[in-house]
Amino acid sequence: MSFESADAAETEPSQHPQQSHLSSRLSDTRRISIEIAEPLSDEDQVVQAMDDASPTKWHLAHTTWFFETFVLKQFDETYAPYDERFAFCFNSYYEAAGERHPRQQRGLLTRPSNDEVRGYRSHVDAAMQNFFTRKDNDVPAKAAALIELGIQHEQQHQELMLTDVLSLFSMEPLKPAYREVGSLPQEGPAAPLEWVDFDGGIVEVGHSGDGFAYDNERPSHEALLRPFRLATRCVTNAEWLEFIADGGYGTPALWLSDGLAAAREDGWRAPLYWEEDSDGWRQMGLHGLQPVDPAAPVSHVSFYEADAFARWAGKRLPTEFEWERAARDCPQRGHMLGHGALRPLAAKANGTDGLKQMYGDVWEWTQSPYSPYPGFKAATGAVGEYNGKFMCSQFVLRGGSCATPDGHIRPTYRNFFYPHQRWQFTGLRLAEDR
Amino acid sequence: MSFESADAAETEPSQHPQQSHLSSRLSDTRRISIEIAEPLSDEDQVVQAMDDASPTKWHLAHTTWFFETFVLKQFDETYAPYDERFAFCFNSYYEAAGERHPRQQRGLLTRPSNDEVRGYRSHVDAAMQNFFTRKDNDVPAKAAALIELGIQHEQQHQELMLTDVLSLFSMEPLKPAYREVGSLPQEGPAAPLEWVDFDGGIVEVGHSGDGFAYDNERPSHEALLRPFRLATRCVTNAEWLEFIADGGYGTPALWLSDGLAAAREDGWRAPLYWEEDSDGWRQMGLHGLQPVDPAAPVSHVSFYEADAFARWAGKRLPTEFEWERAARDCPQRGHMLGHGALRPLAAKANGTDGLKQMYGDVWEWTQSPYSPYPGFKAATGAVGEYNGKFMCSQFVLRGGSCATPDGHIRPTYRNFFYPHQRWQFTGLRLAEDR
Amino acid sequence: MSFESADAAETEPSQHPQQSHLSSRLSDTRRISIEIAEPLSDEDQVVQAMDDASPTKWHLAHTTWFFETFVLKQFDETYAPYDERFAFCFNSYYEAAGERHPRQQRGLLTRPSNDEVRGYRSHVDAAMQNFFTRKDNDVPAKAAALIELGIQHEQQHQELMLTDVLSLFSMEPLKPAYREVGSLPQEGPAAPLEWVDFDGGIVEVGHSGDGFAYDNERPSHEALLRPFRLATRCVTNAEWLEFIADGGYGTPALWLSDGLAAAREDGWRAPLYWEEDSDGWRQMGLHGLQPVDPAAPVSHVSFYEADAFARWAGKRLPTEFEWERAARDCPQRGHMLGHGALRPLAAKANGTDGLKQMYGDVWEWTQSPYSPYPGFKAATGAVGEYNGKFMCSQFVLRGGSCATPDGHIRPTYRNFFYPHQRWQFTGLRLAEDR
Amino acid sequence: MSFESADAAETEPSQHPQQSHLSSRLSDTRRISIEIAEPLSDEDQVVQAMDDASPTKWHLAHTTWFFETFVLKQFDETYAPYDERFAFCFNSYYEAAGERHPRQQRGLLTRPSNDEVRGYRSHVDAAMQNFFTRKDNDVPAKAAALIELGIQHEQQHQELMLTDVLSLFSMEPLKPAYREVGSLPQEGPAAPLEWVDFDGGIVEVGHSGDGFAYDNERPSHEALLRPFRLATRCVTNAEWLEFIADGGYGTPALWLSDGLAAAREDGWRAPLYWEEDSDGWRQMGLHGLQPVDPAAPVSHVSFYEADAFARWAGKRLPTEFEWERAARDCPQRGHMLGHGALRPLAAKANGTDGLKQMYGDVWEWTQSPYSPYPGFKAATGAVGEYNGKFMCSQFVLRGGSCATPDGHIRPTYRNFFYPHQRWQFTGLRLAEDR
Repeated sequence: MSFESADAAETEPSQHPQQSHLSSRLSDTRRISIEIAEPLSDEDQVVQAMDDASPTKWHLAHTTWFFETFVLKQFDETYAPYDERFAFCFNSYYEAAGERHPRQQRGLLTRPSNDEVRGYRSHVDAAMQNFFTRKDNDVPAKAAALIELGIQHEQQHQELMLTDVLSLFSMEPLKPAYREVGSLPQEGPAAPLEWVDFDGGIVEVGHSGDGFAYDNERPSHEALLRPFRLATRCVTNAEWLEFIADGGYGTPALWLSDGLAAAREDGWRAPLYWEEDSDGWRQMGLHGLQPVDPAAPVSHVSFYEADAFARWAGKRLPTEFEWERAARDCPQRGHMLGHGALRPLAAKANGTDGLKQMYGDVWEWTQSPYSPYPGFKAATGAVGEYNGKFMCSQFVLRGGSCATPDGHIRPTYRNFFYPHQRWQFTGLRLAEDR
Repeated sequence: MSFESADAAETEPSQHPQQSHLSSRLSDTRRISIEIAEPLSDEDQVVQAMDDASPTKWHLAHTTWFFETFVLKQFDETYAPYDERFAFCFNSYYEAAGERHPRQQRGLLTRPSNDEVRGYRSHVDAAMQNFFTRKDNDVPAKAAALIELGIQHEQQHQELMLTDVLSLFSMEPLKPAYREVGSLPQEGPAAPLEWVDFDGGIVEVGHSGDGFAYDNERPSHEALLRPFRLATRCVTNAEWLEFIADGGYGTPALWLSDGLAAAREDGWRAPLYWEEDSDGWRQMGLHGLQPVDPAAPVSHVSFYEADAFARWAGKRLPTEFEWERAARDCPQRGHMLGHGALRPLAAKANGTDGLKQMYGDVWEWTQSPYSPYPGFKAATGAVGEYNGKFMCSQFVLRGGSCATPDGHIRPTYRNFFYPHQRWQFTGLRLAEDR
Repeated sequence: MSFESADAAETEPSQHPQQSHLSSRLSDTRRISIEIAEPLSDEDQVVQAMDDASPTKWHLAHTTWFFETFVLKQFDETYAPYDERFAFCFNSYYEAAGERHPRQQRGLLTRPSNDEVRGYRSHVDAAMQNFFTRKDNDVPAKAAALIELGIQHEQQHQELMLTDVLSLFSMEPLKPAYREVGSLPQEGPAAPLEWVDFDGGIVEVGHSGDGFAYDNERPSHEALLRPFRLATRCVTNAEWLEFIADGGYGTPALWLSDGLAAAREDGWRAPLYWEEDSDGWRQMGLHGLQPVDPAAPVSHVSFYEADAFARWAGKRLPTEFEWERAARDCPQRGHMLGHGALRPLAAKANGTDGLKQMYGDVWEWTQSPYSPYPGFKAATGAVGEYNGKFMCSQFVLRGGSCATPDGHIRPTYRNFFYPHQRWQFTGLRLAEDR
Repeated sequence: MSFESADAAETEPSQHPQQSHLSSRLSDTRRISIEIAEPLSDEDQVVQAMDDASPTKWHLAHTTWFFETFVLKQFDETYAPYDERFAFCFNSYYEAAGERHPRQQRGLLTRPSNDEVRGYRSHVDAAMQNFFTRKDNDVPAKAAALIELGIQHEQQHQELMLTDVLSLFSMEPLKPAYREVGSLPQEGPAAPLEWVDFDGGIVEVGHSGDGFAYDNERPSHEALLRPFRLATRCVTNAEWLEFIADGGYGTPALWLSDGLAAAREDGWRAPLYWEEDSDGWRQMGLHGLQPVDPAAPVSHVSFYEADAFARWAGKRLPTEFEWERAARDCPQRGHMLGHGALRPLAAKANGTDGLKQMYGDVWEWTQSPYSPYPGFKAATGAVGEYNGKFMCSQFVLRGGSCATPDGHIRPTYRNFFYPHQRWQFTGLRLAEDR
């Protein structure tokens, strides 16, 4: 099994939205979703572990619904829906697209069956290919844009499929592995923590140009930075263990008030998925319950924890624009979904100076609240609900993770989660003022 | 498919606990559980619809755990457990049997898989047959009693398998049918409501003699009745529609205080599973969403509703001992699981005087709180947790339902639920003082 | 200050409902309410400690509202209400008497002020005396019955005023005393625990005859008892400390399932108001935080705890009819409100054989669910909501407490609370089968 | 009664922290708190209306505790605490200052009594004056800074005293007025809505210089603005009524996702304190329930509502730096506490061009999340918990309200609340890009 899309290695697909390319990228994306579901039984795919997570089957159907609703129903007058009732079942949160099944009840959908959902996918895939064919690969620009958005959207759900199944498996008493490996080798030691300096001044941030970007990355605009330093790699599990050993979770002065309340209410004393027994700390992951690897980046920490850690370390989290400024100089490479590790890997001391792990491994919490850029306009129509309506009380993360599909990420990419959320592959990189 | 046990028709099995009989009744019971699960996909069997309900797979495994834990592990030194970890997964509420998976998370158990649970069942079934064989069908009395209890226990779970899957399907937007039938025929008119008189005086209630009975039916003892009347049949949907039309749900004076609070909080305006649209009322059942049949007994009403209805009708609910007194004269027949209707059927005006529908169709709420009988002693050991610890804040129901396995019920049988619960096939029969 | 009503000592007032008597008993009762409030500041009287409790001011106003609504507005055409808006503020739960202020917001009523409520009381008191005068003390029987009910009703609220203020003071960091005493003397040793035997057979229970009784004590009827024994006194704090020391709170087998859940959720490890520090257990009471007196009856235990204790002791709780049977032979005396101790006192070893503490000190939990008596009819009109609508999921307590007004109690008197409630002076007396 | 501090009219007190001045400003501030409490009964002052609000008595005590804890106990070795136990009762949220009474139970503190709290205030006031005297008005700089902070802190609580008592009175059925006025005159028409243009570029924001400012206003730093326009006045009730009439509350596309959820859950259909009856909309305020004044600024709206309104109007909320840039040119005048209106007043069409209502009337929601300024360092010691630990998930408001004490506000002043909160005098001013 490979989660690699055919062209991810050499090019950044979103830079080349030609038609034939679009059609093949669509096929690739659709195939990878199925591959991700492959190790899972029908049972695994139907259950919802918690309100924040969705069942695999639902992801498979919802991403299909997206193409049906926003492309086929709007641009292909010959299209006959697979089942009219699915629109109610598989709409996520698009108010403009009508009534929908409540989010927290997605795990009750034993019907339609997984077989039917696979049928639904095939039906829509065939219709999409047919659409390309009939248009002689010359689909209208508006449709092409929506297909591109659908691809990006499905890639996001690919990441969620993995994090959501991890969430489910972590709650099961048998602690099953998504990928069976026996025991994982521990990584070598992590590269030492060093610092890279950046100047202040006005920089251009956000997305401009032709390639695909979400509306929340636009418009590109100027931002004013002060001189700063960025750590060359992410905070490691070894460093996090020091924070724990130093009583970090029990020191109110390190915490935001809301963070302290969350930590107390939920009894946090380590990252999510960590368990301590007589042999020390183990961590539930896609390979099952494995010893915590000291060299690997810490993952599954909330913004609150990341912020407390940074304060403990005498540093701070970077702003999203500091991160973006730094990232523009880095090659867009990293341990992402296509790499296949399915877990964050240690930064190697490989002789290269400069920033490591900027892409992949773990999403990096920034200190930036998720807000609209100056002049932000949400896309028109139902897809305008994609990003803008969440611009409140969340924080921006940057850089992608080991579960982010290759080719999905950009220097300007803004991911966002609530400050208490921990089920994504979320870690942190330290910053400080110069 | 038949849910009928081989000997249910002619005899009451619990009266003949001979060994060979026990072995064959065990096989029958185990087979019927599998048959009940047959129309369900693996997906249907893993999901938990609500805290009160359990997944089918869990029922299949838990009933197996019961034999493994209380029979094989205790009486068969040759027994090798299928998987030691299952004890944690499938204990329900037996504190004495160790830690267990939380009830409200039973729906997260995608592992062990349904295949493994079927394997677990086969393993335990083989071990049980082996146990019978090696003992030359002369199993110790204590083991025999526990096997009998295990059979009765599994029969109870058979009923729950059906009511729990109905609960699940009712919450699904596609409103699937457990048994596909197209449209159900409406039953003919119900027999008219008449009354049977009973004298007061001291009667013997509760179970005595050799046949199986739960500890909560014992000891048999004297109860003092006052002269009373009992309705010849259960309250029908037609009668319930009158109650609705008369504003019964909105008339505080008819309701217990707790009942009014429950009705307001959950917005009750009809029995559970009823939906009103422009074509009138429909009811979700094991045959899907079907028009409410006026002649059929009302079902899926809470104690609160039953009590309010009785007050509205100027009558009252019977006590459990009035019901038991009346039931002793009735043949132990009715529309139960073996009949296969899987829904309550109308009482026929068949020329016979006297009480109809005493067994089967719907469990009948009584006005009796579920309390210990005078001199009640819980069974010793973990199975002592079976009944006694629930003797608080619940109400007794009598007579069984369309989902109760044949041979499971008795005149002395006491079922019990909280007054707000509605997901069982629960209805009512009116009584009054003479 | 004395809480004693003028005639409580020599007669049982409810047996003599002559008019002049009624008028003077009304005055007495109204005066005692004011006396109970006297040690409290206006601030103490306005706050609501928890949903189950009400502010003193609210009690003072609500009992006044009762006379205004059910007597003056119905029988005195000359009556001019003090303030029409008070009906909304001070109705408790009478659906038939119109909309009302939500129970859990009673503590928000800083207006009307305590002064105004005192004015309201004076206004209604004057109107009532005027009513008696104008009728030349010959008030209609229906009015007389409602006045009697109003007196009884106010007596119940007098007990609640004390238990509710205790609840409030227990939650305050300064742990104030309702009655300042410095330190309380410990009582001498409790009388030894002995047993009194009773025969079985049919006994008459419930209230008959002319004296006042609530509708829930009627109709009197026959009940069938089995031979039983009753402990001569209530369970003491010393005995409860043994239960604690023996791990009673942590032994699931002793507990009802609902009780175990309540105990775990709320972290019960001793009766309500007990606190353990390095000097041992202390108990918050109307005299402030005082050392637990080993000889005094245990108080502020829930039904769940009482039931678990009885099981631990190898005994059981009595039924309400066993208690009533035994009480008929006892003088109606005890440490009640008029005694002035304001706490349960030890049973003295005074040479008298037989039952002690049947009245006063602590309400005694019985094992009887609070159900309607056979043939029960709720009173007509709004006062019909007084008792009947609560006949569900509660348990009967008998005998009154140290906070029950003298003359309020009877052998047939049925008090009732939910099995988890602990803020009343509630204890237990053991029983067993002979 | 006047809430005006002696020198508020001519100077900005925080600019002159000379000693004698400090002492007299302290006296003024302490006196105004007492004046604010004056119209309230002891009952009014003890009750807590909701978790977000505190009782008046608690405010009076807590502000006193501040001086006792951070000034007297640290700098005056002669100081004898009034009552050691008060530290537990009246600490708000300072983790470093020890354990404290839970916030949501502040309304249970009937003891210490209001009299005792007044005694506590006198004791501390006398000690503070004594402290000034003994130091010959030459208090150490650290103490002076903490006294200044204590004054500012008490001013904040003065505003809360008023908004919290409004919250309480709004929940009372009698809808009492804090200030009795009979009926309020309607204001004349509001000034027309016009726009003032501002250039983009780098501006200095935040506080520099010597005067008092909270740590969250520092360090002053450069911010980059884009050209923008600001409305000359706040949004009025008349304009809000249009939003309501146009279905604004029921149009999902106008709302942030979290906002829509809050609006649905709490049933918002108008600002807090608005009630509609047959005579139209009325609004509960410090003068009781009064008709909504169309010309007055809308108040008691959440960030979610303000944001939705702005979207409906085709505009946006200003950023906090846009507001601050604009405010620097405005005189620091407005309808604040000293004016005595105790409600937001209409902006008069007075011939003056330019921005009106920048200070006073209503706090203005900005679109800026409440985040630390670049280089922010929390103050050291317990007072470091004052601001920094709340920098998460809240939004900045600017300009002060009709309940803000005179002299308390500055162009750089940052107030902050959660986006769902509505019990402050919160409104909005529109902005747009040029």
